[in-house]
Amino acid sequence: MQPGASAEDVDGVVARVAAAGGEAFVSRGVSRTIIGLVGDVETFSGLNLRAMPGVADVMRVSAPYKLVSRLNHPQMSTVYVGGVPIGPDTFTLIAGPCAVETAQQTLEAAEMAQSAGATLLRGGAYKPRTSPYAFQGLGEDGLKILADVREATGLPIVTEVVDAHDVDLVASYADMLQVGTRNMANFSLLQAVGQCGKPVMLKRGMQATIEEWLMAAEYIAQRGNLDIVLCERGIRTFETATRNTLDVSAVPVAHDLAHLPVIVDPSHSGGRRDLVVPLSRAAIAVGADGIIVDVHPHPEQALCDGPQALVDDDLRALAAAVRQLPPLMGRRPADAATTVS
Amino acid sequence: MQPGASAEDVDGVVARVAAAGGEAFVSRGVSRTIIGLVGDVETFSGLNLRAMPGVADVMRVSAPYKLVSRLNHPQMSTVYVGGVPIGPDTFTLIAGPCAVETAQQTLEAAEMAQSAGATLLRGGAYKPRTSPYAFQGLGEDGLKILADVREATGLPIVTEVVDAHDVDLVASYADMLQVGTRNMANFSLLQAVGQCGKPVMLKRGMQATIEEWLMAAEYIAQRGNLDIVLCERGIRTFETATRNTLDVSAVPVAHDLAHLPVIVDPSHSGGRRDLVVPLSRAAIAVGADGIIVDVHPHPEQALCDGPQALVDDDLRALAAAVRQLPPLMGRRPADAATTVS
Amino acid sequence: MQPGASAEDVDGVVARVAAAGGEAFVSRGVSRTIIGLVGDVETFSGLNLRAMPGVADVMRVSAPYKLVSRLNHPQMSTVYVGGVPIGPDTFTLIAGPCAVETAQQTLEAAEMAQSAGATLLRGGAYKPRTSPYAFQGLGEDGLKILADVREATGLPIVTEVVDAHDVDLVASYADMLQVGTRNMANFSLLQAVGQCGKPVMLKRGMQATIEEWLMAAEYIAQRGNLDIVLCERGIRTFETATRNTLDVSAVPVAHDLAHLPVIVDPSHSGGRRDLVVPLSRAAIAVGADGIIVDVHPHPEQALCDGPQALVDDDLRALAAAVRQLPPLMGRRPADAATTVS
Amino acid sequence: MQPGASAEDVDGVVARVAAAGGEAFVSRGVSRTIIGLVGDVETFSGLNLRAMPGVADVMRVSAPYKLVSRLNHPQMSTVYVGGVPIGPDTFTLIAGPCAVETAQQTLEAAEMAQSAGATLLRGGAYKPRTSPYAFQGLGEDGLKILADVREATGLPIVTEVVDAHDVDLVASYADMLQVGTRNMANFSLLQAVGQCGKPVMLKRGMQATIEEWLMAAEYIAQRGNLDIVLCERGIRTFETATRNTLDVSAVPVAHDLAHLPVIVDPSHSGGRRDLVVPLSRAAIAVGADGIIVDVHPHPEQALCDGPQALVDDDLRALAAAVRQLPPLMGRRPADAATTVS
Repeated sequence: MQPGASAEDVDGVVARVAAAGGEAFVSRGVSRTIIGLVGDVETFSGLNLRAMPGVADVMRVSAPYKLVSRLNHPQMSTVYVGGVPIGPDTFTLIAGPCAVETAQQTLEAAEMAQSAGATLLRGGAYKPRTSPYAFQGLGEDGLKILADVREATGLPIVTEVVDAHDVDLVASYADMLQVGTRNMANFSLLQAVGQCGKPVMLKRGMQATIEEWLMAAEYIAQRGNLDIVLCERGIRTFETATRNTLDVSAVPVAHDLAHLPVIVDPSHSGGRRDLVVPLSRAAIAVGADGIIVDVHPHPEQALCDGPQALVDDDLRALAAAVRQLPPLMGRRPADAATTVS
Repeated sequence: MQPGASAEDVDGVVARVAAAGGEAFVSRGVSRTIIGLVGDVETFSGLNLRAMPGVADVMRVSAPYKLVSRLNHPQMSTVYVGGVPIGPDTFTLIAGPCAVETAQQTLEAAEMAQSAGATLLRGGAYKPRTSPYAFQGLGEDGLKILADVREATGLPIVTEVVDAHDVDLVASYADMLQVGTRNMANFSLLQAVGQCGKPVMLKRGMQATIEEWLMAAEYIAQRGNLDIVLCERGIRTFETATRNTLDVSAVPVAHDLAHLPVIVDPSHSGGRRDLVVPLSRAAIAVGADGIIVDVHPHPEQALCDGPQALVDDDLRALAAAVRQLPPLMGRRPADAATTVS
Repeated sequence: MQPGASAEDVDGVVARVAAAGGEAFVSRGVSRTIIGLVGDVETFSGLNLRAMPGVADVMRVSAPYKLVSRLNHPQMSTVYVGGVPIGPDTFTLIAGPCAVETAQQTLEAAEMAQSAGATLLRGGAYKPRTSPYAFQGLGEDGLKILADVREATGLPIVTEVVDAHDVDLVASYADMLQVGTRNMANFSLLQAVGQCGKPVMLKRGMQATIEEWLMAAEYIAQRGNLDIVLCERGIRTFETATRNTLDVSAVPVAHDLAHLPVIVDPSHSGGRRDLVVPLSRAAIAVGADGIIVDVHPHPEQALCDGPQALVDDDLRALAAAVRQLPPLMGRRPADAATTVS
Repeated sequence: MQPGASAEDVDGVVARVAAAGGEAFVSRGVSRTIIGLVGDVETFSGLNLRAMPGVADVMRVSAPYKLVSRLNHPQMSTVYVGGVPIGPDTFTLIAGPCAVETAQQTLEAAEMAQSAGATLLRGGAYKPRTSPYAFQGLGEDGLKILADVREATGLPIVTEVVDAHDVDLVASYADMLQVGTRNMANFSLLQAVGQCGKPVMLKRGMQATIEEWLMAAEYIAQRGNLDIVLCERGIRTFETATRNTLDVSAVPVAHDLAHLPVIVDPSHSGGRRDLVVPLSRAAIAVGADGIIVDVHPHPEQALCDGPQALVDDDLRALAAAVRQLPPLMGRRPADAATTVS
């Protein structure tokens, strides 16, 4: 309350909270009065207490998400993608081309991915691009290529969906749907993937706080889908040496708040090939449940994000990191066989 | 090029650029070689020059947008919304409730808006909300209320659309469609409003650079709609005293780069009622073509963003600012009658 | 408190607060307990309550500054610089060269400043530069030039000090000392200017929150000097179109929290000449008590920040803005004669 | 150059560059002309080319630092602190209390540090604090305590200096001087430590780009001191879940640009005890040459930053990480004996 708030002001707040079914506890001090509220946050936010006479400020001290919160679900969840686990006991490498361009390129990239230890294949058929003049993806043709490559390699596929009305189509091909950084707050899309019956990878918005990211996950969960994997992919800061700033702290922070697995994208956060392996190592060491990495057989010809795709030497370094570091973190490699745990 | 780049490296870049239909000009110096490219930027970005041997860095020195650029269209555009101009000669006040809640509340807010000098009515029927548990808007019922209030007051209406598949429905009621800050990079939605036949207000993404904002406008323009009004609404920074940081510099910067009108939202950027009038004055003084302001007859009961809605005293101060400042900037009030200019 | 905090945990907190001379009020709810503290904030922060068993989080709800706070001093202060007021009733234009280079250049810049309506002269003799290879200022020779130009024009002088041990020397020449953005958290310097007996202009750190800025002012005030003028000069954000992002909201926010005058630097925030006049207008309109602007007789030869120094046309536009806008804000021009108010 | 720049405009730029001893190479294209410059960057920045007629923009494509750059010194440097190496072959744990409070507390903290594998002791005698009412450190008494504890434990000491005029005093006690995040751009201080004859740890400004950080190192190097260790300690972003955002990418980026060792401070970046061990692991894995960690025997009584100081369990986890991870990165523990390599 403001320093000059009257007893009536205080009573007014208490009465409004009570009328809304909550409880208000008043702490009076020499120069300041604080009112603590207990009850449903959404109800309180509808009360506009901040606009009442005498009120100085309103602060929330409990989390606004419920279904994804660890408070109500202390044990960490494992999400299975085509039989491959992502969770607290394993480390999962997801790799593949940023964009599906041709059947040949996708197959070669999948083989590169597999040779580095990947057990899930990524590849984009629908690409959200900043410029309307840039390559936008192959659409359903790309999905068909991915399905063929899954057939050939046995790797379940993870692919992005950018429009709520494509969700059913993409879900009919994919093992996991990805919601990209620019769509983290596209609530129609979140609700649609919440009903799609497939696991969802939710990238953090490059401008989103961790709390907003968990609220976006709550949108998906609220529609009945708790098979959600969070993906930290860098946030926007003032630093220009890297495309975005990989926020590794987000991994333990999100693990502390939510029971969902958290993976890291070291390719898009840095935007530089020379950073992919160091950032992958950092991601494993900070406790991520997996990473998702761009590989391309001919990065100099890639139609999308070629500068960050890994080539041979890096791939060997990545494979070594994925083999050596996770056991130190108490994790084993994730493959379909590990399902039977 | 890198310091140790060979003549073959340089020739390789020149040849690839030439093969793509561009021109490359080589500047050799004592310790460094720079290659300037002239031609189509999109073509060049597909070449992945950064991945070629000897290349140190690639920088773009021309703008990636064309249709909205002032380079090709030096004269500033005026956009007409139900006959009301938004452009370089006028100042337009858009006001109304953040969310349409009831017919009564919307009508009262419209009358408040009109009394402050507003000639366009804002009001949201579809609300993108961070929490799935928050009020999401009345949908088509809200659009009907807006249409009734337009009938009663004569004010053309501006309302938000959040899903590409609602665009036709919303356009059948609205005089102008608003794309919100969270959807600035929702490319499906941008393309849909590009084909809707109605003017569009494009809010800047809270995390978007001015260049990305103009690229989003280019998406709309590319589908045939150049009736675009840009709206600066605050960007996300480290400062927590305000909800976002209003970037007033964006107004002259965007005016310098694009021929589109630019307005300012002083309500959502600050998120505090006491900042609305000062920020409105700043917006007028920095050269904005209009402002869009939240008003609500009973802000303490508002279902959405009540803390920032104006009440009586502020409304009078706003009306005074809107009357006094624009003439000093060479602008007259915008009303439907001014169409005939 | 954490959901599982015990009665002993709660009692422990209450006891520790009481032992430190404060009061603790406990609000118990269905799922959560909140303890409100009343007393001295500094004492509490030494208690490390966050580290006690059962404590979930500690939030401060009152301001950590006292001497500069409006809570204890509701009336706005006016600071006099060589007889020229900066405060709530006036608008003060401070102008001059970024760096003092020669007597001739400084005199010409001062005359430009005066012709635009400036009543205080700025000019740097000590320049903090990012590069050790850049021009660092003339030092005491620069101060002598400033004193001569003051003699010739009658304009009191404002100049920067960058080291605590130069404060006495600079104060012996200057009418007002400036603490620059990079030194806002240089606490030795803050304490030194707090004892110098001259008014101080405290620029906001480009990375500092408004609260940290007011804490820096508190450092100066605590040493006995309340003649402090705050200067907003742009904060660092992700936007690269401008050097920094001018945070105009900081003016009304700081006015609301502290009784000190607040001015704006439109030259350094944008870093672009074409933005100086629009941002100056915005600063006046948002309620600033003054602005500080770079002028240079020959900007293309300036040794420091030439790209943002105003030339003739802009200077006339600035003079017009400074004449026309402040009266609409209830302010009169600030000159030495207005002292007698 | 601007699209409409004339041949005279181009010639003007070329002539001015030539007059300054540089070379200008002109690339002309269909719609745009680019001029590449070769020569001394500082000279060019004094030319104010941006202010010349016809010039659209000026971009720098080479680094502004020389002495710390890897271009001129490709091999990575090792810095010895009281015989303990920090460099590419070793991993160095620096630990100790944030602030020196008493002899007893400092000795206990040093023993904790040693038990976790630390070979250097940190401890602050001069504390830069945001609030003038907070504990500011013991000053020279603190330095004496540190020297006694060095005697008792054999650990060389690292301690902060906050004022140029204390540098000689602090250097007479310390084995390494630390420049803190708030002083990264305090150029007087940088120059003073550049002449002190002791190694310097330079923390990154929380608002500083990597380039500005390297420029600050250049200030130190320019005064003759190349024994500089860079320390990444988190940058300020919009995220509020952590005190700052640890920028792990800065480690490989700085290693790529400069030959100086880079360490990480996982305590101050997160500001939370539960993040220290995960962030320490991430730092080792991303390639840091060392870390600097807060430990305190009784964190609940700490006068400074208690919430982030490690306690027993964490200390054991930290010791395990420091033992297991560096060998995977090709590093051995750093102790005085390793000097003889």
